[in-house]
Order: sequence, then structure tokens, then C-alpha cells
Amino acid sequence: MPLVRFTDGDALRAWTLARRAAGQTVGLTPTMGALHAGHLSLVRAARAECDLTAATIFVNPTQFGPGEDLDRYPRNLEQDIALLESAGCDAVFCPAVETMYPPGAATRIEVGPAGSVLEGAIRPTHFSGVATIVLKLLNLAPANYAYFGQKDYQQTVVVRQMTRDLNVPIEVRICPTVREPDGLAMSSRNVYLQGEYRRQALTLHHALQAAQHAYAAGERNAARLRRAMEAVFAGEPQVEPQYAVLLHDGGVEEAHGELTGPTVAAVAAKVGPTRLIDNQLLSPGEPPA
Amino acid sequence: MPLVRFTDGDALRAWTLARRAAGQTVGLTPTMGALHAGHLSLVRAARAECDLTAATIFVNPTQFGPGEDLDRYPRNLEQDIALLESAGCDAVFCPAVETMYPPGAATRIEVGPAGSVLEGAIRPTHFSGVATIVLKLLNLAPANYAYFGQKDYQQTVVVRQMTRDLNVPIEVRICPTVREPDGLAMSSRNVYLQGEYRRQALTLHHALQAAQHAYAAGERNAARLRRAMEAVFAGEPQVEPQYAVLLHDGGVEEAHGELTGPTVAAVAAKVGPTRLIDNQLLSPGEPPA
Repeated sequence: MPLVRFTDGDALRAWTLARRAAGQTVGLTPTMGALHAGHLSLVRAARAECDLTAATIFVNPTQFGPGEDLDRYPRNLEQDIALLESAGCDAVFCPAVETMYPPGAATRIEVGPAGSVLEGAIRPTHFSGVATIVLKLLNLAPANYAYFGQKDYQQTVVVRQMTRDLNVPIEVRICPTVREPDGLAMSSRNVYLQGEYRRQALTLHHALQAAQHAYAAGERNAARLRRAMEAVFAGEPQVEPQYAVLLHDGGVEEAHGELTGPTVAAVAAKVGPTRLIDNQLLSPGEPPA
Repeated sequence: MPLVRFTDGDALRAWTLARRAAGQTVGLTPTMGALHAGHLSLVRAARAECDLTAATIFVNPTQFGPGEDLDRYPRNLEQDIALLESAGCDAVFCPAVETMYPPGAATRIEVGPAGSVLEGAIRPTHFSGVATIVLKLLNLAPANYAYFGQKDYQQTVVVRQMTRDLNVPIEVRICPTVREPDGLAMSSRNVYLQGEYRRQALTLHHALQAAQHAYAAGERNAARLRRAMEAVFAGEPQVEPQYAVLLHDGGVEEAHGELTGPTVAAVAAKVGPTRLIDNQLLSPGEPPA
């Protein structure tokens, strides 16, 4: 079956409801397009779990702040749709901006502390924009499951908080980060990394590896694990770290002292003009990649 | 059939979805209890339009501000349920506060300008609380229609804004204000109006009548209609008016100059310690009641 393409929200909703009324399960993968192997892994996870899979492609303006890269964010709609089709996606929703935000649209979702620290401290309106568009998309495509990547860890926390707090009937699935062969986390923004920036971008992964290496070797002190990450950034002064933290897994609360539960190391840095983020769930057994 | 009573959101949702899957329509009336004839008119409107009707009774703490009457807000659960049953309601949801706001709940909906003027200027977090609880209830009881009273005019604007902006699949129905024989708009807070306050409370209705009288007589100048309302308040100096405005019907934008379209007169005033609101769609033909 060829991919069905929607630009109208009511048509997407009718399609989704008809499938569900017929007893089929539907998995939804919201994206901003510029698809890479990470996105396609989400579509494949949806395919493996659900009878039908839908994706959305929408560069959501409300999650970009002033001076951010909304205008230059990569857009490749026809290529994206071909990739979705090759991954076995059944439907795609590619609305116009004015479809999602018609004149007079004013409602925003605020998720509280989960959206105001880390990325939220640097991008104050970002997670409000994310939560708002995700809820809108879930209302237009009331799927059984929605798929997000671990790469955007704080986004997964925010989406889970929003769906739980607002009683949104969806199960959120988080899929592992997909990496380039050298370890760089896949990101649509990696196209910005030309020349030397591409090499410098690996610093984020190397910092996480340092934390993972120390953790696997038995280190459980949060401050020392943080310093292990900071040391890697210090060795690459062209890269400007923004944070390097240890978080209790599942939330955005920083872990201090001796770590006892599952812990996520999370980093953000500027590589030339490009902000990158990455994270890793620390694993006791796993040797560094 | 006796009224089905739910305290668990998942059970309410299952009940609603089962009815809808069977091809029946469901109408929802969200309330804070302390039911009066106004609420029951909403249930009857739902009954007239839908196969099944559900109501919710929840004194929503997030729509009360500091120093407001959350603690003393009237609560009569068993009497309310008997009234709902007598009005032909099929199901009622009466959750505990911790069911709706478990520990860690942090997400709020902000509706923008529609929630920040008039009542929103006096009660800054009120409409965020209203929009949040209404969305939660609509997610737990995904009905075809939701019923609200014209009495809370700005609330109807906010709910419509929220459902439209967030693509919530519900049709919002607004039902006429129900009044006491002397014209006082029904309100759960009318129980606060003892003795002389009960008489003074009529000032709101009288102010609206003055605007309606002038409008029916051909007056179309917004300032003069406003002054007609202000003159009524000036004649009752014990009552403290908070606003007396003319609004373009359907929104909260003030009408100025010569009125050309449908216009709502809206007033708020303090009668002793009690805040009251009322409003009226100005009608060219209708003589004052």
C-alpha cells in the first residue's frame, strides 16, 4: 500500500479513527522532517508494534526561539516522504503552518519545572512549543502509541509529563539514540557541521563516554562523573559546553552525591554556531563504545 | 437506569468509549457541584441532544486564586447526585483532588489574551485552571458535546479557544443563563448572599437591563451603553462594580464607538464579600425583562 498523505487535520483524524474502530492499533511518530536513521528507527519501532504507522512532518515554529534556526532548519519534504515510504510508514501528515496555527491561535501548554531547566533554561519557550504541538498532533492522530527518540531526552520527559498531567490517552515509547559510526548522535542539525565542526561535534559523545567509562569502572560520585565530562570539554576549547549533568533517569532532577538509581548523563554544547545535545543512560556493565 | 458513579478516570473513559463505540452520542456537563437549575438545564440540553449524558462534579482547586473561596465553596455531593439523577443524567464523575492532580502534576494550559482580561485580570490564574481541568475532563470523558452556561461568558470564550487551538475533538454548546424569578443569574455562590446582599446582588442584572433597554430603544453608542450600566451601579453605592463592558459576541474584545455586530454586555461586581458576574447578549427587538 502506498503511503497516504494528509495536509488536513480532520482527514488525518478520520483515517486514524477508522483504523482504530476496525480494531487496528496505530503508532505515531511526530517529526520535524529532515529525516535521518534515528527517525526511521522510530517508524520501524512503530511498525513492529502496531498494525499501522503514521508520521508527521512539521517544522513547528513555536518551539524555536528568537534568533534560532527556524528559517534555515533543513527541509526536504519529498525526500522525507520517500524515506517514510521505504520504512513502511502508512500515512504522513504534512500540514501548513497556518493549518496548525491559524490566525488567533493563542493557547500554549506550560509543563512546569521539567520544561524550564537545562534546555528550557537556554531556550525558554522551547518545551512549551513542543508540548503544545505534540498535544495538537495527538488530538489529530489519536494513536495508541507515540514514538520519540532518547536523543532528545528532556523532550521525552516533557512529553511524558504533559500526557500524564493532561490525561492524554497515549502510550509514549522511547527508542534508543541512533549514532553515526564514530558515535555522533544523529540529528537533523548535523548538516550544519561542516569541516572541523564535524570533528569537534564528537566532543559531546566523548564526554558521555568518559562518564560511562568511569561509571562502568565503579565510580558513583556525581561530582567526579561530572568532572570527567568537563575534562573532555576542557580538552576541546573550540567547543563551548553549556551543561554536563547527571540526572535521575525519567526526570530532569540533578543527581548529587553518591548515585544509587538509574542515572542519565546529559550534555549540551555549541560547536561553532550550532547547538548540539546528547545523553546516555549510565550502564554498570557496558564498556565504553 | 440508575446513575453510574465514577471516581476513577480510567473507568469513566472506558464507559464513554464503550458508548461511543456502540454508536451512541455522549454529552458532558462539567460542574463544580452545588448544582442549581442552571446546571440542570445543561444536563437537560445534553439529554435532548445526546443518547447519553455524563456530568462531572469537581471543585477544581487550580481555578481558585489565593484568598478566594476554595475552602468555603459549597459542597453537597449526595444532593447533587440526586439532582443529576432526577434530571436524567446517566453517569457522574466525582474524583478526588489527588486523582486529578497527583503529586508531581505541573502542566498548565495558558489561553492567552482571552484568559487575561476582565475576570482574568482580577483572577490571574483562573482561566488557566479552567482550561486545564476542562481539557483533562474531556480526555477522561471523550464525549461528542460539552455543555457550558452563558452565565460564565468568558469561560465559554476560553473553552472554545482552548478546544479550537488544541484540536480537541469536541463540540462546545452554550446554554442560556437561568435566572431566579427576580432576574438574579443562578450561581452556586448565591448561597453567600444573605439578607441585604441578596437585594444588592440584583444590581448586576439591573445594569444589564439598562443596557438592553437602551439598545432596544436604538442606542448603538458603546460609551453611552456603558454609562447606562455605570449609572445603575452608581445608584447602589454598597455594590462595588469591577467592570461593565461591551464585548464583541464570541470573544473578549471590547466594542468601542458605534456597535455594528452582536454585542454582549458583561458586568462584575462585589456584593459584600461576594464577587458576582453576569452578562447579556444585547437584542434589538427584546424589551427589557
